[in-house]
Amino acid sequence: MKLSLLVLVVFVIAVGCNQSNVDLKAEEAAIMKTDSTWSAIAKESKDVEKIVSYWSDDAVVLAPGQPAVKGKEALRKFIEDSRQIPGFSITWKSSDVHFSPDGKMAYMSGENLMTMDDSTGKKMTIPGRGYTIWRKEADGNWKCVVDIWNNPPAQ
Amino acid sequence: MKLSLLVLVVFVIAVGCNQSNVDLKAEEAAIMKTDSTWSAIAKESKDVEKIVSYWSDDAVVLAPGQPAVKGKEALRKFIEDSRQIPGFSITWKSSDVHFSPDGKMAYMSGENLMTMDDSTGKKMTIPGRGYTIWRKEADGNWKCVVDIWNNPPAQ
Repeated sequence: MKLSLLVLVVFVIAVGCNQSNVDLKAEEAAIMKTDSTWSAIAKESKDVEKIVSYWSDDAVVLAPGQPAVKGKEALRKFIEDSRQIPGFSITWKSSDVHFSPDGKMAYMSGENLMTMDDSTGKKMTIPGRGYTIWRKEADGNWKCVVDIWNNPPAQ
Repeated sequence: MKLSLLVLVVFVIAVGCNQSNVDLKAEEAAIMKTDSTWSAIAKESKDVEKIVSYWSDDAVVLAPGQPAVKGKEALRKFIEDSRQIPGFSITWKSSDVHFSPDGKMAYMSGENLMTMDDSTGKKMTIPGRGYTIWRKEADGNWKCVVDIWNNPPAQ
C-alpha cells in the first residue's frame, strides 16, 4: 500500500470526523414542523395521548402559579384537567430556535394564548411567553423536555 | 507501509472520532461552580459588570410581568435598575443540569428568592422557580443564554 493512499484514507476519515455531519437547517425545519403540528393538535384538544407524546418521558412543565408537572403520568393529568376547564383552549407560536453544535439539543422562544370562560361564561384570554427546550431522541424524533412560560407586562 | 499499520492508524482515528471526548462530569462541576459564584456575586450586588458577565452577549432574561431583557446593554440596565429598588437582593440555587451530548449546551432548573422593601419599608420576599440555558463559548467559559422563571403556587 502506498503512502499516498494512507494519507488519503486518513484525510477522508479526519474530515468526516471533524465535520459534525449535522444539517442544522434540516433539524430546524424538523423541529419547527414538530412544534407547529403539536400546537395544532393541542388546539384541537381531542387526543390526549397525542398531545402528551410531544413531551419526553422526563419532561417538566412549569406554568405560572402551578405546581411543576413532571413526567408522562403527571402531564397526562395536566392535559386531562385542562380539558375540564370551561371554554379552555391553548395555541402557541414558537420562533428563534438555537441548537447545540451536535444538533441534539435545542431551545426556542414561544408566545402562547390561553382562553377559558370566566365565572360569568365570558371568554377570557391569558397571554404568556416563554421557552421550550428540546432533545433529539435515539429514534430521531425531537421531544420537548422543558416547557416554561410567564406573564408578559400588563397591557 | 504494512497493511496492519494502516488498520491500526484507521482504528485509532475512528475511536478518537467516535468518542466525543467530552467529560460531562467535569463540565457539570464547571457549570455548577460558575452558577454558584454568579449567585454569590449577584447577592453582593456590588459589581454590575461582573454580574452581567455571566450572561452571553445575546442572552435573554424573562422575569414575570417584565418586558424581555435582551443583550448586554439591556441586561446592564436591568441590574442597575434592580439596585435602585429599596432593600433589593436576589439569591438562587440551581440543580439538575442536563447537557447536550457534545457538552456545548446545557440547561438547569433553579429556585430564586427576591427580597425588597414594601411601601412601609417592611421586607418582602418573592419566590421564583425556573430554568437557565447555558452555552459553552469558544473560550471554554459557560455563559447563560436564557434565564426565565415564574411564580410557584401561592402558599
